[in-house]
Amino acid sequence: MSLSEFGLIQRFFTKQAVKNPSTRLGIGDDCALLTIPDGYELAVTTDTMVENVHFFAGAEPRQLGHKLLAVNLSDLAAMGARPISVMLALTLPQVDETWLAAFAQGFLGLAGQHNVDLIGGDTTAGTLTLGVQALGLVPSGQALLRSAAQVGDFIYVSGNLGDAGLGLKISQGYCCGDPDAALARFNTPTPRIETGLALRGIAHACIDISDGLASDLGHILGQSQVGACINWDALPLSDAVLGYIVATGDWLMPLVAGDDYELCFTVSPEQAPSLPAYCRKIGLIEATPGLRLNKSGTIQLLKVKGYEHFS
Amino acid sequence: MSLSEFGLIQRFFTKQAVKNPSTRLGIGDDCALLTIPDGYELAVTTDTMVENVHFFAGAEPRQLGHKLLAVNLSDLAAMGARPISVMLALTLPQVDETWLAAFAQGFLGLAGQHNVDLIGGDTTAGTLTLGVQALGLVPSGQALLRSAAQVGDFIYVSGNLGDAGLGLKISQGYCCGDPDAALARFNTPTPRIETGLALRGIAHACIDISDGLASDLGHILGQSQVGACINWDALPLSDAVLGYIVATGDWLMPLVAGDDYELCFTVSPEQAPSLPAYCRKIGLIEATPGLRLNKSGTIQLLKVKGYEHFS
Repeated sequence: MSLSEFGLIQRFFTKQAVKNPSTRLGIGDDCALLTIPDGYELAVTTDTMVENVHFFAGAEPRQLGHKLLAVNLSDLAAMGARPISVMLALTLPQVDETWLAAFAQGFLGLAGQHNVDLIGGDTTAGTLTLGVQALGLVPSGQALLRSAAQVGDFIYVSGNLGDAGLGLKISQGYCCGDPDAALARFNTPTPRIETGLALRGIAHACIDISDGLASDLGHILGQSQVGACINWDALPLSDAVLGYIVATGDWLMPLVAGDDYELCFTVSPEQAPSLPAYCRKIGLIEATPGLRLNKSGTIQLLKVKGYEHFS
Repeated sequence: MSLSEFGLIQRFFTKQAVKNPSTRLGIGDDCALLTIPDGYELAVTTDTMVENVHFFAGAEPRQLGHKLLAVNLSDLAAMGARPISVMLALTLPQVDETWLAAFAQGFLGLAGQHNVDLIGGDTTAGTLTLGVQALGLVPSGQALLRSAAQVGDFIYVSGNLGDAGLGLKISQGYCCGDPDAALARFNTPTPRIETGLALRGIAHACIDISDGLASDLGHILGQSQVGACINWDALPLSDAVLGYIVATGDWLMPLVAGDDYELCFTVSPEQAPSLPAYCRKIGLIEATPGLRLNKSGTIQLLKVKGYEHFS
């Protein structure tokens, strides 16, 4: 059986009822049409995942669909935006209906949880390449910018670091007692939408941790023209990650591993008590440029870079 | 020399000054931020071009950058939307600075002509795959929908048909006297933005001709639940295309060849006098389903499909 491009998109992706009040026209015309309520700005982001670069060949398609959307929703969360809709650009080596059904289930399942409508897309033939553009709303002037950190701010993260990094190591062969939680953090991350919304009007700078804490916090420092010191002993770590560090001595891992999709943000000491209880203070914004690490009383300069595709 | 992903994007794509009043925050944060004026809806579209599928390997990068943006702006034109900004998802097999400089020149040159800001993007390593998401504004309720054709409407096109198809044949080896104009139509199409804006409040249904007149008009007929008869002798054809038809007998070409990016639209007889003078009436919307062709007095049913990637 051969499915036309149009039939293929229709079959797996267009049966969803419109859920978001911003969607005036969804899939099927030259463009989708969105209504943006007065007093809001539109936040827009795009991320592409390529086979053998961002995920292993043969990756489970339901998880892939989930993760593809999650990494884009995470960018909206990092701005304090509420997601409203997404577009999906699929490049597929062939039409595999079982694969597409599972991929759509993972993608649309997460979309449905956040009342996000799939409003358009594009399907082409080629190396498996998955692109998403995500759109969200944030009250005008309230977006959380990377450039907004101030000297004296506390640095927080929204949850445990390094679990996704451990999940990657497990999927590459590392053995630990209870692999499922770490694998889930790696394969089906949770975008911290509600945290991002809770930070509106409270946090200064914010970013999501996709490339690793050191690298992503580095973007805040660079764009805010400040420095920071983070306290290793304050990092929230799961028992599984602590066990990994004890077993391997690799204490840098939770600082440099990506894919956690927790939020890292800065907040004035006065506003810190307003934060959700699960947020953890890990350091301080300082005037001196550079990222310093206090590990058991010894301070060292961190020079770490995130993953770069052409380095 | 190795350029980081970030440096690569910065170097070639972020030196542009912000030109569009809707851009509140461009490249460099988790998301871009846009201000949407009251009384407008946002039109959103995405299109991906893959090497060896949508363009030949070794295609001239400046033309490729132009065409990639043009096909997306053309979708906005077909809604009657004015483009404001674009995001660019580049998947590149390697960093070739000469290629990137030329590609950026083609892309940003066309963007600048329409005051379109590049507000974000993504660069990954892999098979050459070029994705764009384009955003535009249209006054609320005035978008030109494929579903809006009415029985009795005249069918118009905004310019000559088949020139891009001839350009494709020339690039594949067909010889004609003056190849440059047809090649330019194929390689560097012009999105009919101004025509789309002029059609607001005048035209009913509208679509851009990317897959060929018969296929794209077919989408209008399907979504409007009407039929049509088009008059072959009324099709606007360049001397070069007429010469091709005389030489080859291939009179179907201007009906089925894609890439012209002219607009095809329907309009009530009363509104037809308000159209720009360069628009050409080519047929009539009828109640009987199907697409019919009147060629020198003989009427035949057209059964043609556009290009399908997985057929």
